[in-house]
Amino acid sequence: MARSACPVLSSLGPVALDRAGAEPLHRQLYRALRQAVLDGRLRPGERLPPSRTLAADWGLSRNTVVTAYDTLLAEGYVTGQVGAGTFVAASLPDAVPGGGAARDEARRGVGLSARGRALAEAPAIARDRVGRPFALGTPDLAVFPFALWAQLLGRCWRHGGRALATEPDPLGYAPLRAEIAAYLRAVRAVRCEPEQVVIVSGAQQGLALMAQLLLDPGDEAWVEEPGWPGNRAALLGAGARLVPVPVDGEGIDVAAGMARGAGARLALVTPSHQFPLGVTMSLARRLRLLDWAAARDAWIVEDDYDSEFRYAGPPLAALQGLDGAGRVIYVGSFSKVMFPALRLGYVVVPPDLVEPVRAARRHFDGGTSVVPQAALHRFLADGHFASHLRAMRSLYAVKRTAILASVADAFAGFATTEAGEAGMHILLRLPPDCPDHVLAGHAARVGLTTPPLSTYYRAADGGSAGNGLLLGFAAHDPAALDRAVRDLARLAAEMPKG
Amino acid sequence: MARSACPVLSSLGPVALDRAGAEPLHRQLYRALRQAVLDGRLRPGERLPPSRTLAADWGLSRNTVVTAYDTLLAEGYVTGQVGAGTFVAASLPDAVPGGGAARDEARRGVGLSARGRALAEAPAIARDRVGRPFALGTPDLAVFPFALWAQLLGRCWRHGGRALATEPDPLGYAPLRAEIAAYLRAVRAVRCEPEQVVIVSGAQQGLALMAQLLLDPGDEAWVEEPGWPGNRAALLGAGARLVPVPVDGEGIDVAAGMARGAGARLALVTPSHQFPLGVTMSLARRLRLLDWAAARDAWIVEDDYDSEFRYAGPPLAALQGLDGAGRVIYVGSFSKVMFPALRLGYVVVPPDLVEPVRAARRHFDGGTSVVPQAALHRFLADGHFASHLRAMRSLYAVKRTAILASVADAFAGFATTEAGEAGMHILLRLPPDCPDHVLAGHAARVGLTTPPLSTYYRAADGGSAGNGLLLGFAAHDPAALDRAVRDLARLAAEMPKG
Repeated sequence: MARSACPVLSSLGPVALDRAGAEPLHRQLYRALRQAVLDGRLRPGERLPPSRTLAADWGLSRNTVVTAYDTLLAEGYVTGQVGAGTFVAASLPDAVPGGGAARDEARRGVGLSARGRALAEAPAIARDRVGRPFALGTPDLAVFPFALWAQLLGRCWRHGGRALATEPDPLGYAPLRAEIAAYLRAVRAVRCEPEQVVIVSGAQQGLALMAQLLLDPGDEAWVEEPGWPGNRAALLGAGARLVPVPVDGEGIDVAAGMARGAGARLALVTPSHQFPLGVTMSLARRLRLLDWAAARDAWIVEDDYDSEFRYAGPPLAALQGLDGAGRVIYVGSFSKVMFPALRLGYVVVPPDLVEPVRAARRHFDGGTSVVPQAALHRFLADGHFASHLRAMRSLYAVKRTAILASVADAFAGFATTEAGEAGMHILLRLPPDCPDHVLAGHAARVGLTTPPLSTYYRAADGGSAGNGLLLGFAAHDPAALDRAVRDLARLAAEMPKG
Repeated sequence: MARSACPVLSSLGPVALDRAGAEPLHRQLYRALRQAVLDGRLRPGERLPPSRTLAADWGLSRNTVVTAYDTLLAEGYVTGQVGAGTFVAASLPDAVPGGGAARDEARRGVGLSARGRALAEAPAIARDRVGRPFALGTPDLAVFPFALWAQLLGRCWRHGGRALATEPDPLGYAPLRAEIAAYLRAVRAVRCEPEQVVIVSGAQQGLALMAQLLLDPGDEAWVEEPGWPGNRAALLGAGARLVPVPVDGEGIDVAAGMARGAGARLALVTPSHQFPLGVTMSLARRLRLLDWAAARDAWIVEDDYDSEFRYAGPPLAALQGLDGAGRVIYVGSFSKVMFPALRLGYVVVPPDLVEPVRAARRHFDGGTSVVPQAALHRFLADGHFASHLRAMRSLYAVKRTAILASVADAFAGFATTEAGEAGMHILLRLPPDCPDHVLAGHAARVGLTTPPLSTYYRAADGGSAGNGLLLGFAAHDPAALDRAVRDLARLAAEMPKG
C-alpha cells in the first residue's frame, strides 16, 4: 500500500491518501475532509479551496475533487452555490448518516460508556431537510386541519382536564389504545386487543424499546439490505450484531438470512412496502419468515412505516395477522399521516410481552405525555383521522402520478423508476456511469434533497450497493415536483461520465 | 435448616417455611404468598383463608399470619376490609416494589433478553394510588388552571400550527429550552445555556438516558441509602451495579461511598431534599462530592425532584452551580408542579455531552412530542408558571403546617416527625415495636397509603433499615389530612406490640 501524505489546506494538516488502494480516491478524499469537519480542523464557515486548486496542489484529477465536494454537499457537511465557492456548513446537518458522530475524540475524553460511544457513533437517522424537494417522509402540512386540532386539544382539557392529568399508564392512554386496536383490526388485519397496544413517542422509541427488551449485546439481528439507518441504530443501541440480509423482488431473502445469521434472535422487516426499494413481501416469503421465527423462538419486528398510503392493488394485510405463534411485534407511527412533531406511534406486542413492556417502559420513561394522546384519541374517535387519511391518500396519489410522469418524460432513455404501490417516495434507478452520491451532490447544490440509494446499504462502498435516488413527493405540489425533476435530469445529463 | 412443607391453600400447593431460619416467619409467609400471586397460583379475586384458619392449619401464630396479610395489603397484592375477608387484588398494583416482576417463569419462556428480564424484574417505581391520603408526589390538581391550559394549547396550534408541526429537534422545542434555562439560572443558580437543556418525557427518561449514555454493564454507581426505587431502576436498566451509600444528617456519606465503591463511575443524589429522609446536603459534603467526581472523572446526577416547594430557610442553590469541572448532570421535572400526566422533564448536561445526548436521543425516541412542549413554553413565558408555583407553595405550606400539628397532637409521646424544609411529604419515625410495614398494612385496610420507610432501603430486611412512614400531604385538604392522621394514630395504638 502506497500511502502519501498530502501537505495541503493550511488548517487541515496532512492527509493520507492510498493511491494504490481499492477505495476510489474521491471517496478517500471525501472521508478525509468529512473527518476534518467533524474534528473541527475545518471550521464552520471556512472556505474550501476551489476544486481546480486543490486538484493541482494534491496531484489529483479535478473530477476526483469535484466528486468528493459533491458528496460532502449532498450530505450537508459543506454548502455552496455554483461559482460562489464551497464553505464548511455553519451547523452540522442532522440529516447525515454519521453526522451525529462528530468529535469522536472529544467524546472519548468526555467519559461516555462504551454503549454511549456506540450510540453517539451509530449511523444517525437521516432526517432530510424539510421544505426541499424531495425530502423523505414529510407529509403535506399545508392541508392538515390545525384549527380542528387546536379545538380538540382545547376541548379535552377545558372539561376533562383533572381526570386526564392524573398518573398516566406507562402503556398509554386507554381510550387511544382502544381506538388504535380497532383501526388496526379493521384496516390492517392486525389481530390484537387494546391491552396489546403500547403508545410510544414515535416508532423509533418502539423499536428501541423492543430491542432493549429482546436483545442482549452480541445477539444477531437480521436487517434488510438495503434498509433504513434509523431502524438499524435502534438495534445497535441495544448492542445487537446486525446481519444484513438482501432484499429481492419478494422481500427479505429468508434463506440468505438463515445462511448468514442462523442464530439470529430477531428480524426487522418492512413487509408492506420495503424501505427503500418499495417491494411488497410475497405471501410465500411471509410464511417462510414466520416459520423461521416460530421454529427458532426468534422475534419478527414488522415496521409498517407508511402502509397507510396505498394507491393500487387490494388492501394488504399485515404480517402480524398471519402469525399464529405470537412472534411478531407490529410497529406503526402517526408522524406521516398527522405531522412529524406529534411524535406518537404504537407497538402491538404479543400478550406475553405486555407486562414486561410495562415494566421496561416504567424504567425508560414512565410513558408518553397524555396531552397529545388525548387529542389524537378524539381525532380518531370522531372520524377525523379516517377522513384526513382519505384526503391525503387522494392528494398523494395525484402527486405520485405527476412525479412518475415527470420522471418518465425528463429521464426518458436514461433512468427508470420503481414505485411499488404505496408510500411517499419513488426510486429513480440510475445507470452505472451516473453514481448516485455524485448526482445527489450536484442536486444539493441547487437546493434538492435526493437521498442516494447506495447510502442505505450497510457496506457503504461495496459493488453490491444499488445506484439510484429516492424522491419523496408528498410535501410538494406537482408543478414544483416537475421543475425539480427537470432540474435533476439536467444535472444528470451534464454530469461528466466515467 | 429445618424446612417444612405446609400442604395448605388448595390452589397454592406446598409452601416451604424455614422455622429455624433468621428470617421472621411472617416475612417468609408474605414472600410465599406474594410469589403465588405473581405466579398466578393465587388468582385475582380468590379469597384467602381467614388468618385464624390459616394459622391453625399451618401451625403458625395468628399474629404471624396477620402481619403477612397486612404487608400484602400494604403493597396492594390483596384487598380487604376489616371483617370482610382478604382477596387477591383484581389487578396487580403499579404501586409495589417488585409488582412489575409478575410471572417470572412465563417471561423466561417468552424469550426476553437478559437485560429485558432485569428490566422486568427491577424494583418497580412506587406509584402510590392516587386519591388516597397520603399518596406521594401527587400535586393538588383541584387548583390547576385547566381552562387556561386548554386555552394555551388551542392558541399554540390555531395560529402557529404548521411551524410547530415540522420535524422536531430531538433535544426539545427551542423556546421551551430557553425558558427553562432562564428559570433555572434565576431560581436554582444552575449555570447553563439553553443548548444544554434537554427536554425529556419526565425525569425518569432523563435518568435512563444518562445511565445508558454514561454507564456500561457492571459499572458501579452510588445510590443513596435509603433512596427512590425509580432512580435505582433507571441505573439497573443500564446494567449498573448499585452501591448503596448511607445518608446522614449532611446527605450522602462521601467517605463511605469511597470505601464501598471506590471505582464508581456515577453518583445519583438528591441534594436539595433527600428522598425520603428530607435532609439537605451540607456545603462541605457538596464540595467533597464534587472533588471526588472531578478527581475520578466520575459523573454526579443531581435529581432535584421537588425543590420547587421550599417553605423555610434561604433559597438553595443547586449542586450543579458549584461544579467547576463539568461533572454534574441536573435533572428536574414538571410532574409535581404541573400535573403527572404531562410527562415533561429536563436534563441539564455539560456542554460536551450535548451532541452525544442528541445522538442517543435520536436512537431512543427521536424526541418528545412538541404538543405539550409548546403549551408549557407559553405557560412559562407568560408568567403563569411563576404564579402557579407561588400559589402551590403557599397552599402546600398551609397543608404542611396542618399535618405537622395533627401528627404532633395525635402521635404525642409515640412517634416523631422529620420534615426537612421542602417537599410534599413528611416522615413519621416509628418506635421499634411498631414495624412500619405492619402499620402500613393496617392503614391500607382503612384506605390510607403510607409508604413504609423500610422499603426504600436496598437491603429489604436488614436491621439497618429505618422504621417510619412517609406521609404525602399535597393532594388533600387539612381536614382530610387530620382525619387520616388520627385514624393512623389509632391503628398504631391498637397494634399488638412485640
